[in-house]
Amino acid sequence: MNAKKILLAHGSGGKMSQELIRSFLPDLANPLLDKLEDAAVFEASGRLAFTTDSYTVQPRFFPGGDIGRLAVCGTVNDLAMSGAVPRYLSLAFIIEEGLPVEDLQKITASIKAAAAEAGVSIVTGDTKVVNQGGADGIFINTAGIGLVPEGVDISAANARPGDAVIVSGSIGDHGIAVMSQREGLRFSTPVPSDCAPLNGLVAAMLAACRDIRCLRDPTRGGLGTTLNDFAAQSGVGIRIEETSVPVQPAVRAACELLGLDQLYIANEGKLAAVVPPEHADIVLATMRRHRYGKDAAIIGRVTREHPGRVVMTTALGASRIIDVPAGELLPRIC
Amino acid sequence: MNAKKILLAHGSGGKMSQELIRSFLPDLANPLLDKLEDAAVFEASGRLAFTTDSYTVQPRFFPGGDIGRLAVCGTVNDLAMSGAVPRYLSLAFIIEEGLPVEDLQKITASIKAAAAEAGVSIVTGDTKVVNQGGADGIFINTAGIGLVPEGVDISAANARPGDAVIVSGSIGDHGIAVMSQREGLRFSTPVPSDCAPLNGLVAAMLAACRDIRCLRDPTRGGLGTTLNDFAAQSGVGIRIEETSVPVQPAVRAACELLGLDQLYIANEGKLAAVVPPEHADIVLATMRRHRYGKDAAIIGRVTREHPGRVVMTTALGASRIIDVPAGELLPRIC
Repeated sequence: MNAKKILLAHGSGGKMSQELIRSFLPDLANPLLDKLEDAAVFEASGRLAFTTDSYTVQPRFFPGGDIGRLAVCGTVNDLAMSGAVPRYLSLAFIIEEGLPVEDLQKITASIKAAAAEAGVSIVTGDTKVVNQGGADGIFINTAGIGLVPEGVDISAANARPGDAVIVSGSIGDHGIAVMSQREGLRFSTPVPSDCAPLNGLVAAMLAACRDIRCLRDPTRGGLGTTLNDFAAQSGVGIRIEETSVPVQPAVRAACELLGLDQLYIANEGKLAAVVPPEHADIVLATMRRHRYGKDAAIIGRVTREHPGRVVMTTALGASRIIDVPAGELLPRIC
Repeated sequence: MNAKKILLAHGSGGKMSQELIRSFLPDLANPLLDKLEDAAVFEASGRLAFTTDSYTVQPRFFPGGDIGRLAVCGTVNDLAMSGAVPRYLSLAFIIEEGLPVEDLQKITASIKAAAAEAGVSIVTGDTKVVNQGGADGIFINTAGIGLVPEGVDISAANARPGDAVIVSGSIGDHGIAVMSQREGLRFSTPVPSDCAPLNGLVAAMLAACRDIRCLRDPTRGGLGTTLNDFAAQSGVGIRIEETSVPVQPAVRAACELLGLDQLYIANEGKLAAVVPPEHADIVLATMRRHRYGKDAAIIGRVTREHPGRVVMTTALGASRIIDVPAGELLPRIC
């Protein structure tokens, strides 16, 4: 492609659209996508999981990732959290006129790498270009299809009193990484985003215990909101121990400095799980052997008390209700 | 919902997000969506079609439709053009802070009506809010899943010399409707958009002839671009008769006034089909009995001559090559 910046004409559906699409298509090539039909057609059978997410993160490149990696990992993770094996992704760009073509190429390369890591194929897509000022650089939507293995039944409504609550690693990394990049903050220890595909970790967990009750990746709203979803939808209480929740020192320091609570900061490569008590140790040990679960920890229990509420035992031994935040902590985080 | 305008906090993932989502969820209610899990899970088996499109049309309300109706019909039609029976849609909003809540409600009502007409369920979704100036009101992405019936094999690469080329009705209506609304043009006969779900029409056509070769809805780039796709991907020529192509007088007049060619103007409720010659009459008669095909016409033939090219016999009997336009005729048309 000769152009250095994306032009409105690249979204026309005409020759310049073809040129733009051909400039990144080889990166994503597979037999289904290469047909360039209006829809991809493939055989499937069984229980399918289907999900969608749009990505509007600002800035589009940040320590540990970019909007392209995020757009693959976020949707792969939403599928994985239903217990599905992610298989097929759609990819839709909304591009602001004037976006450097180089940025689009970096993003596409990143999408390619993340899709390869997660083992998914991008099989259908769409590219729209809007006038300058009509969008903010680039927005990406991915939808995904996965296959739910026989016997797996994961839902935020499945938690039962006595179950263990596990988190796969340190919380708040993604939010602090994006915020520090956006605001030009510098910490002595830089915090990269944790953005990663978690389907491999989930597959290992399910191999260790088919009866995992709840899984969710705490993105917008953070771990605090995810645990509240579990409590509300299952009609149970949850009690966690502040000292058991893994937090990187740099994230803790940044939160203290900025007056934020790491429980509400977005993650893009972590999951929260609710597991029957008798399987908690084996699931934890399995997670710790995985690249994306090596800092996993049991952080609490599901309780019969205070149904619908999450309560934290603080480092000082007091009890604190962990509510759902009302509004916005940090816009454009994903 | 109390707010009159969408706030950044409505995209936070917290309580205000829940309030926003609950304000339009009842409109779209179905058992899969109501679970509000990260992914919808359902049984399916056979050949699946999967597609995605983002909608950025400006203005968001136009004669004959709005961005909500467009977002359902466009994706339903992409599925139908692969011969699939559309079943499940995802729905992702990117909303600019400050969008009137009333606009969102009108759009959601329109999505509900279009989904009901097309017989599809919205089973999973996502809502992002970006800061003022970060987007232009509202963008919508829908992805869709359909089931391809046994024995159906439709592809832009399937046209053969001798086949008939059929269009389902008058061309250019959507583009002229949006353009006249946007530019404040007034014609003595107003042109409404043709925006409509075509899956019912396609089902009727397939019942009449299982061997339909190619189907496509000529959106961006118009009929001219679609026919070029057929010619290029099938390695055949196509010859159409200018006098056979249905065009509403008001659209013809608007195109003459504005120096545009109706062959390249977007449609959102029309399809072009390539059909074996022996079935052309029965397919045409079937289409004409359908609400969305009553002005269907055979407009030309697939030829062995000039492979990869579309040629039109003009009203004066001359031959004119119908090329793919290079750039943008009309941005933000869908």
